[in-house]
Amino acid sequence: MQEKGLLIVLSGPSGVGKGTVRKEIFSQPDTMFEYSVSATTRLPREGEVNGVDYFFKTREEFEKMIQEDRLLEFAEYVGNYYGTPVDYVRETLDAGKDVFLEIEVQGASQVRKKFPEGLFIFLAPPSLSELENRIVTRGTETEEIVKSRMKAAREEIEMMKLYDYVVENDQVELACERINSIVVAEHCRRERVQYRYKKMLEVD
Amino acid sequence: MQEKGLLIVLSGPSGVGKGTVRKEIFSQPDTMFEYSVSATTRLPREGEVNGVDYFFKTREEFEKMIQEDRLLEFAEYVGNYYGTPVDYVRETLDAGKDVFLEIEVQGASQVRKKFPEGLFIFLAPPSLSELENRIVTRGTETEEIVKSRMKAAREEIEMMKLYDYVVENDQVELACERINSIVVAEHCRRERVQYRYKKMLEVD
Repeated sequence: MQEKGLLIVLSGPSGVGKGTVRKEIFSQPDTMFEYSVSATTRLPREGEVNGVDYFFKTREEFEKMIQEDRLLEFAEYVGNYYGTPVDYVRETLDAGKDVFLEIEVQGASQVRKKFPEGLFIFLAPPSLSELENRIVTRGTETEEIVKSRMKAAREEIEMMKLYDYVVENDQVELACERINSIVVAEHCRRERVQYRYKKMLEVD
Repeated sequence: MQEKGLLIVLSGPSGVGKGTVRKEIFSQPDTMFEYSVSATTRLPREGEVNGVDYFFKTREEFEKMIQEDRLLEFAEYVGNYYGTPVDYVRETLDAGKDVFLEIEVQGASQVRKKFPEGLFIFLAPPSLSELENRIVTRGTETEEIVKSRMKAAREEIEMMKLYDYVVENDQVELACERINSIVVAEHCRRERVQYRYKKMLEVD
């Protein structure tokens, strides 16, 4: 009896530091997550290894994956496809390992549709929690600047809807600790644990 | 604008080590929780301080608290009342601090009714997760012993229903770490965080 792993999806507005947080998490020697390797049609750069850095695919192969619904999410960027192969994710989860995905918000919303049971974490810019200060001190800013900041803040808060958790990226180390705590907590959720115990009893 | 604290309720079958876990949590210098002081009608022992160890009450005072619904939960034990005054809990939560309650399962189910938004953590005996081994090796045990173990396990698993999280008390330090992680994670839940941001925007 093998318990399934968790699919952890880290996303957030561009520029918030998702990549930095992901690298920090995977630089920790005791990290328990498997990193989901993306597929791409772009050519390998020097030193990049197929299956480690990316799954390198031809355009034809990639489009076949799209047609066969074998991508959790994908996007085209500067003439190349990038996406998350679903097979790798499913196999790793089935092996009881937690899979970590770091993707753009558009990708995250595609994943949510296919994997609603995933753990969706929104990385928020620390500037968001300074909203109050910015509002209070707005007398010193032009109306224009205040308005555009409020609009950006509203859009970012709107994006959160899709997510289970919001982690503020005030300090990379703190953000990583919070993410690790969220995963530990999710593994303790009663629904997960009770189900496991009940299954044990059914063996009887 | 003050965000409310979390009410953390630690409970579990008797003998599971709730008191030990609670003491370990409060022995940590950086613990962020406030311990909920109980009320009792028993006499203070030497060195016990009113308002620190217990709120010491007369039987008359305690029964007045019951009538006025000023206890989150209470029970009578060896001729004395023990209970959790609701005022202290509410005031501490309103001040934005997390309150930690360590109580028996009967008390926890009373608290759940009055404080459904609390964070209910079930401390599980490590023996539970050895269920499988015990079932597999039952050939070496009498039918009687196997049956009574299965019954106890079923009852303990049944108790979990009320709770949000299950923490196995395999090692006190690990159990405390998990509890701390659960609280960190709960503070990152989107509903809590998004609501906070939205409130900030409303100020505008």
